[in-house]
Amino acid sequence: MNYLLSETAQNSKVSAVREILKLTQGSSVISFAGGLPAEEFFPIEALDAAFERVFEQGKKSLQYGLTEGYTPLREQISVRMSKKGIHADPSDMLLTTGSQQAIDLLARVYLEPGDVVLVENPTYLAALQVFHYYRVQVVSIRSDRFGMDLDDLSRKIDEYNPKMVYVTPTFSNPTGKVWSKERRKGLLEIGHDRNVLILEDDPYGELQFRDDVSYPTIFSMDQHPNGAVLYTSTFSKTVVPALRTGWVVGDPTIIQAMTRAKQAADLHSSSLDQQALYQLMTHFDLDAHIQEIRSQYRQRMELMSQLLHRQPWTDIRWNEPEGGMFLWMELPSDWNAETLLQHAVKEGVAFVPGTEFYVGTPQSNTLRLNFTHTSPENMAIGMERLARAVNSFHLAHV
Amino acid sequence: MNYLLSETAQNSKVSAVREILKLTQGSSVISFAGGLPAEEFFPIEALDAAFERVFEQGKKSLQYGLTEGYTPLREQISVRMSKKGIHADPSDMLLTTGSQQAIDLLARVYLEPGDVVLVENPTYLAALQVFHYYRVQVVSIRSDRFGMDLDDLSRKIDEYNPKMVYVTPTFSNPTGKVWSKERRKGLLEIGHDRNVLILEDDPYGELQFRDDVSYPTIFSMDQHPNGAVLYTSTFSKTVVPALRTGWVVGDPTIIQAMTRAKQAADLHSSSLDQQALYQLMTHFDLDAHIQEIRSQYRQRMELMSQLLHRQPWTDIRWNEPEGGMFLWMELPSDWNAETLLQHAVKEGVAFVPGTEFYVGTPQSNTLRLNFTHTSPENMAIGMERLARAVNSFHLAHV
Repeated sequence: MNYLLSETAQNSKVSAVREILKLTQGSSVISFAGGLPAEEFFPIEALDAAFERVFEQGKKSLQYGLTEGYTPLREQISVRMSKKGIHADPSDMLLTTGSQQAIDLLARVYLEPGDVVLVENPTYLAALQVFHYYRVQVVSIRSDRFGMDLDDLSRKIDEYNPKMVYVTPTFSNPTGKVWSKERRKGLLEIGHDRNVLILEDDPYGELQFRDDVSYPTIFSMDQHPNGAVLYTSTFSKTVVPALRTGWVVGDPTIIQAMTRAKQAADLHSSSLDQQALYQLMTHFDLDAHIQEIRSQYRQRMELMSQLLHRQPWTDIRWNEPEGGMFLWMELPSDWNAETLLQHAVKEGVAFVPGTEFYVGTPQSNTLRLNFTHTSPENMAIGMERLARAVNSFHLAHV
Repeated sequence: MNYLLSETAQNSKVSAVREILKLTQGSSVISFAGGLPAEEFFPIEALDAAFERVFEQGKKSLQYGLTEGYTPLREQISVRMSKKGIHADPSDMLLTTGSQQAIDLLARVYLEPGDVVLVENPTYLAALQVFHYYRVQVVSIRSDRFGMDLDDLSRKIDEYNPKMVYVTPTFSNPTGKVWSKERRKGLLEIGHDRNVLILEDDPYGELQFRDDVSYPTIFSMDQHPNGAVLYTSTFSKTVVPALRTGWVVGDPTIIQAMTRAKQAADLHSSSLDQQALYQLMTHFDLDAHIQEIRSQYRQRMELMSQLLHRQPWTDIRWNEPEGGMFLWMELPSDWNAETLLQHAVKEGVAFVPGTEFYVGTPQSNTLRLNFTHTSPENMAIGMERLARAVNSFHLAHV
């Protein structure tokens, strides 16, 4: 047999960076590369009890479920979101295998090959992978620390007639950035005026470090009866990733089309996991748990930043994000983070070079550091190793 | 906002039959429509214990997992399949959200819009739905009770230059048919000679009623080093559906491409469920369990056939399948099973009209009856109601 893969499959190569990072798995390398939550805070006992409760419900709970997902969980999510000002009816909600699947299903029902999607730059790598499979043209919008440049957005809408804008306005992956309210409002108005759907991807929104500010979702700011925003989030960062349970809410027409598409894609996601999450939300103080994670993650972010400040670097910059899981670093403009990674892995530390996250020409002097998954002890060791890698890189290349 | 769905999403309408069947859910209607396994045989205690064992492994088991799936489960499946003559390396295996997702991912990496896929007629409805989303042209091959007509297959390969043949050779959905060894061998040879991939969908293969025959999978008959067959199966019918865990094995190039596609589609399926299935397979006698289900399902199939034989019908025919979950009925050629369904629902019983499963012009005098999900007591009541529906249909339309 001589298999000819589809064009998009042929063009989806494994990146060199991933291959390097794969080598670090299971080794003694301290990795700031993965986007992993901290295992030590996983609510394992509450989850164990939640599964027990599902099994107590009897055998019916093990049968096929609805494609749209376990109804009581959709109702629970709806109630929980409404406390945060995000109002969505459970019938306008689809449960997915992580929010990743929401991006995929939306692309399937809403985008034709050749359609244009606008994104921030850099942006979430796995969203770009989805758009690639659907043969969608991705165009990047200029951004600053407050979000997309709205003038550039308007210009690109004129130029490309896009069908969708994809954004992660709160603690983005990879930059940890949070959009200002003005930019959120501006994007929303433009979406309505120009009939461009906004996909608001919000996996990190609950991981905020400051109590004195709020970051309203663009979805919640949308007062129109016929909304311009589709909103997706997940339990992967607030409960655990292994259950792969996310949700998406928005316009009923789109949600229903996505539900039909999901029926063909995988019939439904694990309904046992959905039932367990329902039991967890009913019998466990999820908000208190999230408060605890926020506090721990903030401490880790601050520790990482302090450790970096101890270095004698004058030309390396990084942000101190207000939430999420990532710190974004800029090296001097003529440094290449992929080359630095090779030095880093030799020293026993890893990160993701920023090149992975760009559309078009990447800013190759950038890198992403995850601060949630590494214990404070290992973080200190890892940052020393990173400093040695910077020195070794400097000797070799600068 | 004025949303314009993609062309395939616009054309994926909910069928009228499904709407009728939806009305029967949760009502007193006895339904032979769904393709549901019998809940009373679900190994709930063993599964409960399996989840306990996973939780005992600690918090690491709740972290993100590999896209290809939990390695020990892939190894277990590999060992179990090899006992049945199906040899596949765990590294050439991808775990999916049900075998449904295997069909979807294969279509994504292997088929271009406009490519031709050959199928039996009637065939599995949800496979047709997948092909619809990928804009694939589906062409049906003439079949008899032994499988596809190999002459017609060769002719259609000449005519359409297809990339793939999709088959469910063992206890198919909807007809319950099992292919002869000769036809399996013939299909395999043609696949190799003409460079056409065979997707062997085998969700029901383990549900066989006779101990004195074997039905070798086409995958296991393939002796070529570079195989022509991709094989997929699932735990949905042998353990429980709620975990949505299936697998697909075959050519490494295709499996790797599907794994990359799955990374974009949903990153991975529930790794907690995969770990629980591994624990179940390690500590539970799955083969003995399947032996029990086989026996129970055979009894139900025989009971259904006996109950049907009690009717005075001379012009209604059905098969007695050697396994699986479905019995296929042919009404007199001028009867319409969709119209009969309306009478049936009035009498409090439901089935799926055969029209749903056809490519092109359907044989509208056919219908599918599930015999696994209804208890013997309800089956007797349900068959009486079906008999009343046939009478009422006859009075009204014949």
